[in-house]
Amino acid sequence: MFTRLLLLFAAIACATLCQAAPDPLPAWRDGPGKQRILDFVRDVSTPGSPDYVTPAARIAVFDDDGTLWPEKPGPQGLFALDRLRTLAPRHPEWRQQMPFRAALELQGKYLQEADDASVFQLLAVAHAGRTQAAFRNDAREWLDTARHPRFQQGWTQLAYAPMRELLNHLRANGFHNFIVSAGSVEIARILAAGTYGIPGDDVIGSSVVTTLREEDGKLVMRRLATVHALNEGAVKALAIDQRIGQRPILAVGNVSSGSDIDMLRYSQLAETQSPDPQGGRQPGLQILINHDDFEREYAYGEKDRASLNAADANGWMIVSMRYDWRRIFSFEAEPQ
Amino acid sequence: MFTRLLLLFAAIACATLCQAAPDPLPAWRDGPGKQRILDFVRDVSTPGSPDYVTPAARIAVFDDDGTLWPEKPGPQGLFALDRLRTLAPRHPEWRQQMPFRAALELQGKYLQEADDASVFQLLAVAHAGRTQAAFRNDAREWLDTARHPRFQQGWTQLAYAPMRELLNHLRANGFHNFIVSAGSVEIARILAAGTYGIPGDDVIGSSVVTTLREEDGKLVMRRLATVHALNEGAVKALAIDQRIGQRPILAVGNVSSGSDIDMLRYSQLAETQSPDPQGGRQPGLQILINHDDFEREYAYGEKDRASLNAADANGWMIVSMRYDWRRIFSFEAEPQ
Repeated sequence: MFTRLLLLFAAIACATLCQAAPDPLPAWRDGPGKQRILDFVRDVSTPGSPDYVTPAARIAVFDDDGTLWPEKPGPQGLFALDRLRTLAPRHPEWRQQMPFRAALELQGKYLQEADDASVFQLLAVAHAGRTQAAFRNDAREWLDTARHPRFQQGWTQLAYAPMRELLNHLRANGFHNFIVSAGSVEIARILAAGTYGIPGDDVIGSSVVTTLREEDGKLVMRRLATVHALNEGAVKALAIDQRIGQRPILAVGNVSSGSDIDMLRYSQLAETQSPDPQGGRQPGLQILINHDDFEREYAYGEKDRASLNAADANGWMIVSMRYDWRRIFSFEAEPQ
Repeated sequence: MFTRLLLLFAAIACATLCQAAPDPLPAWRDGPGKQRILDFVRDVSTPGSPDYVTPAARIAVFDDDGTLWPEKPGPQGLFALDRLRTLAPRHPEWRQQMPFRAALELQGKYLQEADDASVFQLLAVAHAGRTQAAFRNDAREWLDTARHPRFQQGWTQLAYAPMRELLNHLRANGFHNFIVSAGSVEIARILAAGTYGIPGDDVIGSSVVTTLREEDGKLVMRRLATVHALNEGAVKALAIDQRIGQRPILAVGNVSSGSDIDMLRYSQLAETQSPDPQGGRQPGLQILINHDDFEREYAYGEKDRASLNAADANGWMIVSMRYDWRRIFSFEAEPQ
């Protein structure tokens, strides 16, 4: 009797302790996509593996709006719109000028359709003349209180749970994660720190021209209304080269306006004409998030299907939010 | 007898074990300057100290040429000149055009006098049309074999020993060190990694315009002859704000052309008109390296004394290479 009890006890203990290491990606549905990610991370970080990559070269880049959190609408547009509404009484000319007129009349509907360039231009104008410190403070205060119009959650609650797991899994395996945003770098920084624990200097984004000038004997840095760099399309690849100085081995973007295609292609292609060891073949993984879940998030695509076509042509992994993600947000009920 | 032996033994053991922690800055001569650095690092990194700064805000920025290694001449100019000489037979027009004519005729003498803008323009033209991967490979090969014309040492041997100690001491106390160079970001990256162990994405520098284009079905990134950003003067402060997103608490530059003044002032001044906590008063240290040692390195200054005047007016610490550094290079004989 005692022996049987002991065996039973051992069986219970083993069921608890002998199980495999905990799944690092529980919000991802088991399947070939999830397995491909796990295999890739294992292969590049296991010394001796033919695909082993030194930690210094384990660079991963992520788009943010639509890849790390929802973009229909994105935080930058809502923030700019709030400020435009406040300033509008002092700017009667906006009632005629585009894109201000469209933004003020259509509000959220405008943000659904507008491209990144127009939305960033709104933000640039809405905050022109602010000091950088005051602007960052405005953005922080806004993000602290703003609620997403549909989900009625604060923006830090809107991080995609599967992406949070992926970034943590990469970090635990020696990867250095960067955000490469088409939106305002300052807003992306605040959200990246609050949602994904990514430090500000690992965020690349769009910026306005700033000036450093003497005002009453003090140096002051102010924002102008002029766009300095709009970080989309090929510019994302060029900015990664200029800012990080090496090609990423993992790149993640989303289907929306084709603006991540160049970044994903750049992370994949070897510049074979170059004798540079970094220019040679290296293992890589490219992931494209597809917004196909109108119930839990949104369903939208591209008219020309450019991102999905590029994924098919280049062997990128396509993630269906509907089928590949058990859970999208951490505030959702635990899935069955 | 036994007790006395025991006491003697204890005294010897204590002389070995009870001494203070080893000096983190042995290449710095003891004195008020060295003590100011040690006190500052201790105060900002000791929880409970009135000057305590959270690790995330312990940002330090360093100029490189003349601050981390010699700049008369600097590596970027010598590298550009080598390539110009190779290309010169194919460019007879350079015999008339400035600054090419001056550089090819005066060689090293030209580099002694030229400003950063002209030298970077030489580099931009000398390597226009190269892919980024091939250019980096060129630079790496050149730095692997080039010898400094006076010291006859490879460039990685030319790191200033006191600065290597300072960067290590900062890193050990939770600081994040960045290089902010007026020279080519790619060359600064290779040297920063080889001499100071600083990763490429922590280096900010001057860059040329690059393009991403399809060539025979492959994406290729090429350099143009056009300067994209010359990272000097106020641009250094603006680049720090844009790249790091917060003001450093420690900034180090050198007397040469006044090009670090804005960076040091920016790191010091609180934007008091702003409600941003990061805009308020914070402890800070600004260090200006003065090249006054013609025997061990070089002696040069500014005609208008602008950097030293700014140091006096703002209470910056001035480092005399001659008097404050026991040793400049690690290849020097151990000082008496």
